[in-house]
Amino acid sequence: MSRLNSFREKLKNSSLDGFLVSQEANVSYLSRFRAHDSYLLVSKSKVYFITDFRYLEEARKSLKGIDVFQYKNLFKDISALVRELKIKRLGFEARGLTYAEYAKIKDGLGEKTKFLDTFNIVESLRQIKSRDELKEIRAAVDIAVSAFRFIKGYIRPGLTEPEIAGELERFIRQRGAEASSFKIIVSSGANSCFPHAGITKRRLGKNDMVLVDMGAEINGYKSDLTRVFFLGKITSIQRKVYQIVREAQAKAMEAIRPGVAINVVDDIARAHIAGFGYGSFFGHSLGHGIGLEVHEEPSISNKNKAIIKEGMVFTVEPGVYLPGKFGIRIEDMVVVTKKGFEVLSGVLDKSI
Amino acid sequence: MSRLNSFREKLKNSSLDGFLVSQEANVSYLSRFRAHDSYLLVSKSKVYFITDFRYLEEARKSLKGIDVFQYKNLFKDISALVRELKIKRLGFEARGLTYAEYAKIKDGLGEKTKFLDTFNIVESLRQIKSRDELKEIRAAVDIAVSAFRFIKGYIRPGLTEPEIAGELERFIRQRGAEASSFKIIVSSGANSCFPHAGITKRRLGKNDMVLVDMGAEINGYKSDLTRVFFLGKITSIQRKVYQIVREAQAKAMEAIRPGVAINVVDDIARAHIAGFGYGSFFGHSLGHGIGLEVHEEPSISNKNKAIIKEGMVFTVEPGVYLPGKFGIRIEDMVVVTKKGFEVLSGVLDKSI
Repeated sequence: MSRLNSFREKLKNSSLDGFLVSQEANVSYLSRFRAHDSYLLVSKSKVYFITDFRYLEEARKSLKGIDVFQYKNLFKDISALVRELKIKRLGFEARGLTYAEYAKIKDGLGEKTKFLDTFNIVESLRQIKSRDELKEIRAAVDIAVSAFRFIKGYIRPGLTEPEIAGELERFIRQRGAEASSFKIIVSSGANSCFPHAGITKRRLGKNDMVLVDMGAEINGYKSDLTRVFFLGKITSIQRKVYQIVREAQAKAMEAIRPGVAINVVDDIARAHIAGFGYGSFFGHSLGHGIGLEVHEEPSISNKNKAIIKEGMVFTVEPGVYLPGKFGIRIEDMVVVTKKGFEVLSGVLDKSI
Repeated sequence: MSRLNSFREKLKNSSLDGFLVSQEANVSYLSRFRAHDSYLLVSKSKVYFITDFRYLEEARKSLKGIDVFQYKNLFKDISALVRELKIKRLGFEARGLTYAEYAKIKDGLGEKTKFLDTFNIVESLRQIKSRDELKEIRAAVDIAVSAFRFIKGYIRPGLTEPEIAGELERFIRQRGAEASSFKIIVSSGANSCFPHAGITKRRLGKNDMVLVDMGAEINGYKSDLTRVFFLGKITSIQRKVYQIVREAQAKAMEAIRPGVAINVVDDIARAHIAGFGYGSFFGHSLGHGIGLEVHEEPSISNKNKAIIKEGMVFTVEPGVYLPGKFGIRIEDMVVVTKKGFEVLSGVLDKSI
């Protein structure tokens, strides 16, 4: 069944007779056409791809069974199409419109059409990756793996955090990536104790450690991996924490298979770290789904009681961050298989 | 007067007795503290900087006259603070909250507090750059200028668009940039006819042209410049269009000074291009304000009748895009001075 058909099946079982898809990744996913500032308007009888002049020609060529509509005044045009399609209950993505956009569209719709907020409808379809999607994700992981191997040999005292990030940006594109998946994190020394620190101008010192968190994007699909590198001496506390984080990751992974609740996997890593007294220093969830977005469903947290299913792809990234001292995070990506899991980034070394 | 005081003056003249600032650049601007996922809650008596554990310590150290509040449950916590401050009419940024965020906060506020949408309040303050801001912007422009000079010598047949972008990403960080201002555009050959095309995997050919649109970020402030490079022969039509675009830019710039309406400046460039029959191939506005965001107020369009003021910084970037053939855009940044303008990127060559 096509993605769009799966989505329309979902709509059939809801009280909606129309839907406006506005989140870029959701529009790309359903249409299989990548564009910015574009929308899908889905009714029982028809689907419109609403876009601007940049994508018009290519969209018309490649979209089958979808009418391509060029907008001039986006909000007025959407209202007019909704009237034409006689939609009475139009769903929208509550996280996919700003309040300003919501208010304009609602205003244009008038009294005859209800404009109803929804959550995670397309996102829930995107959780399960197809064979084609997995191929793209594997390619994105492979480039990131090469980048970590390259940068391990490149980092040395004297370089700044942005310089290291810049080399990674160059390297991944040379290997065929379109872009980084997100703003690369390079945090050295005590900066690494902030789990998602940005980049400072800090220059690496002789016995520094560096945390690198980065990924590559291919055809819209993203990877996301983290490794920690040590430039000189490793203190005994660093070695101990590193080992704990690594074991927490391995233990959590072992629990991954279809049918297990997601929170159970997070709990295992958390309990392992807490067992060594570092529970309060693991302040984020264990991981996140990844695909067309770096962070997507499912969230791998101890609050998510959803069940793991074959085809899910997510990160497993426990961490321990000691304020003012250092932070260790190890992040890999897994795909859930029929009976267990495969580590997509399994070939990337994590010995220190 | 401090930025926060200027903002509170604006509030005094409104019907609001409280304001939630949620747009990242607006929060940074008013607080002079850069953080993600942080908010300012401003009442007549008090200002809260609402943030998470990552920024807590540093925020407490550096924010004077602002209470730092660590959120656990963002939306509940905001509601509780609004009640504590007895705010009756709370303004929010209509473009700075998703519908989902808006609905959660509104729900938490209950009946006693009105939650009122506003537009462009902080943005209008940000339009006029201070001396300190201008210093940062100049530094961001200088790095971009160096990057264009570097890449001019680097590009050659055989390279792909992402490889060129990757070299630029590396170069600007080596020169001290934190990051690119935005996803670098490198569009070669006929790809250049899409004004804001992304990057394809296209490899440069012998007589290709390449449009490069990029900028650097320093301490949050951004630059944004465009140049077109020719690798070999320049056709007579390319030369002609290039000349028209260059003249359009020069003519438009000459009109820039305090007191002139913005639309007049756009009109001059547009009329020049239209005079050669290319009017319908200049499909975007002439420019945009730039600072903490790549696109900010004022929009330099033929619809904006606002008046140019000293201290505004914006791009001037006319373009002509011939479908299926090629596109030419030349983009520089100007600051409005007491009696005229200064081209911040004036040292960057545009001869072909």
